[in-house]
Amino acid sequence: MPVSDQGNAVTVVSEAVCEQVIGRQDAFTAVENVFAAMAKQNAYNFPVVREAIGHADALYGFKSGFDREGKVLGLKSGGYWPGNTRLNLTNHQSTVVLFDPDTGRLKSLVGGNYLTALRTAASSAVSIAHLARKDAKVLGMVGAGHQSTFQLRAALEQRDFESVVAWNLHPETLPRLAAVCEELSLPFETVDRKELCARSDVIITITSAFEALLDSDWVKPGTHIACMGTDTVGKQEVDPRLFARARVFTDEVVQSVTLGEAQHAIASGLIRETDIVPIGDVINNAKPGRTSDEDITLFDGTGVGLQDLAVASVAAELAVSENKAQILEL
Amino acid sequence: MPVSDQGNAVTVVSEAVCEQVIGRQDAFTAVENVFAAMAKQNAYNFPVVREAIGHADALYGFKSGFDREGKVLGLKSGGYWPGNTRLNLTNHQSTVVLFDPDTGRLKSLVGGNYLTALRTAASSAVSIAHLARKDAKVLGMVGAGHQSTFQLRAALEQRDFESVVAWNLHPETLPRLAAVCEELSLPFETVDRKELCARSDVIITITSAFEALLDSDWVKPGTHIACMGTDTVGKQEVDPRLFARARVFTDEVVQSVTLGEAQHAIASGLIRETDIVPIGDVINNAKPGRTSDEDITLFDGTGVGLQDLAVASVAAELAVSENKAQILEL
Repeated sequence: MPVSDQGNAVTVVSEAVCEQVIGRQDAFTAVENVFAAMAKQNAYNFPVVREAIGHADALYGFKSGFDREGKVLGLKSGGYWPGNTRLNLTNHQSTVVLFDPDTGRLKSLVGGNYLTALRTAASSAVSIAHLARKDAKVLGMVGAGHQSTFQLRAALEQRDFESVVAWNLHPETLPRLAAVCEELSLPFETVDRKELCARSDVIITITSAFEALLDSDWVKPGTHIACMGTDTVGKQEVDPRLFARARVFTDEVVQSVTLGEAQHAIASGLIRETDIVPIGDVINNAKPGRTSDEDITLFDGTGVGLQDLAVASVAAELAVSENKAQILEL
Repeated sequence: MPVSDQGNAVTVVSEAVCEQVIGRQDAFTAVENVFAAMAKQNAYNFPVVREAIGHADALYGFKSGFDREGKVLGLKSGGYWPGNTRLNLTNHQSTVVLFDPDTGRLKSLVGGNYLTALRTAASSAVSIAHLARKDAKVLGMVGAGHQSTFQLRAALEQRDFESVVAWNLHPETLPRLAAVCEELSLPFETVDRKELCARSDVIITITSAFEALLDSDWVKPGTHIACMGTDTVGKQEVDPRLFARARVFTDEVVQSVTLGEAQHAIASGLIRETDIVPIGDVINNAKPGRTSDEDITLFDGTGVGLQDLAVASVAAELAVSENKAQILEL
């Protein structure tokens, strides 16, 4: 009988160490690579488990997958605990667990809260890098919650943006975006939604809205818009008619049409599933991205488990190489 | 913004510590309690994820759930890596991850290999305790793989067994069962399958067979049989006609009819889903178990995530109280 199952050395990377070792550039590369691998069928996400547990109003579940190219296997587990704010904890809690694909043994345990914000920002940043006009100057931010500053910082690195305009349902949180712009010496202005569309070359929506915040008619030709907030049936950020005008891209088509922003345009017949291009195909030069300065490009960022695994795997490698990981004997 | 997400203290319990702190009696109680909670709708399993990952011939996935009574939330992740034997590792690898149901924060990380064998043995033991004749004297073991000794030891504690008979497709592994019986000063005999059925008052099947190993006609009235091996579509251990003769019980009806031993009897119309009684209803005295000495009782043990969570939670508590847990700052 096997006797060596004991004594498995597991790499542990805390939230604090994640913040020290992995930044936007590493996350960008990790997410870009895994989108590319997904489009080549070398990486795939497993079915998502998501359950209302009937306690503390919590939504709990996991996203998981396997990247054969990167040899990354595992899951992100966690969920949404609305009462956490009262406890001075973030409402979204998550942990990434990585396994050795050669043996199935536990390999790494990585705090997932900071990484979730980082990988989501990397996703819209990848879309901007590959789809926005090269001469984009004005960035429009719709939403000013916890993830918005991550989105803003990552987006600003993709083009020579000269100013930022922003809107949020709760204007009292807009100063957190203003503070980032001040730090980066960029003009910042709060505007209404129509003006935001009129002025922006790139728009990021990162809200938890359940209705269209932006009218299709407001969005000008040439815009790139990354819709990052919709990850559940019923959520919505933009007018579905915008999909009919736009070239549409996503991280994963299956999620996009069922629980992503595209769910509404699909349901109303404005576009078909085959109209949506995996952004990995653009990264791999297998399909065209933007074809003219007049195209509206729309990226439906639904968020896939492989993004979490990709950044967690890089964080674990960096933590080990910088001697910041804890090693656990399991 | 919340600032206290860092510094979460996580309890870590290694395989070695699990073997030190939790034994058959604690596992029995934990599994009996969670079966009871499931039947009262106070605990439920989430959908199972199971994927052939296309690497190392591995099957990988998770079982998960929430026990509202016990306040246990989490998952067991792992799978089957057939090449592990060459590496001197067990082919089945698993880890249990527990979360605080009040906040969603990671709570415990527990090695799952030993616990999987322990909780599976506890499941058949619970079925014997509640369903076998009180005067059962002969235990029949079908299967002599890694889990068989766990099954044997747990079963022997449920009745005053006087002897053990056993059969395995690979007779060269039967000595591991003989060794347990010798240790316990119980007569042990290897027999063919027909004789095994003729002599046994309680039968445990714990194989990875894909065809009926036991003919219905061989099984005598009064027998209790626990079918513990079938956990996948296509697997099979006993003649489906036995279901028509037996009073049928299971851990979870949904699994029993789809991927448990009952799948074949259901598919061929020999029984209906409503003929299968959750063993929790027997534990709770909500439904009858054995009604006469002539009943054949059949327990279809499919294995649910809540069993894993239950024993892991107890192991973590015991490890903490005995100062054997590692504490990890995440």
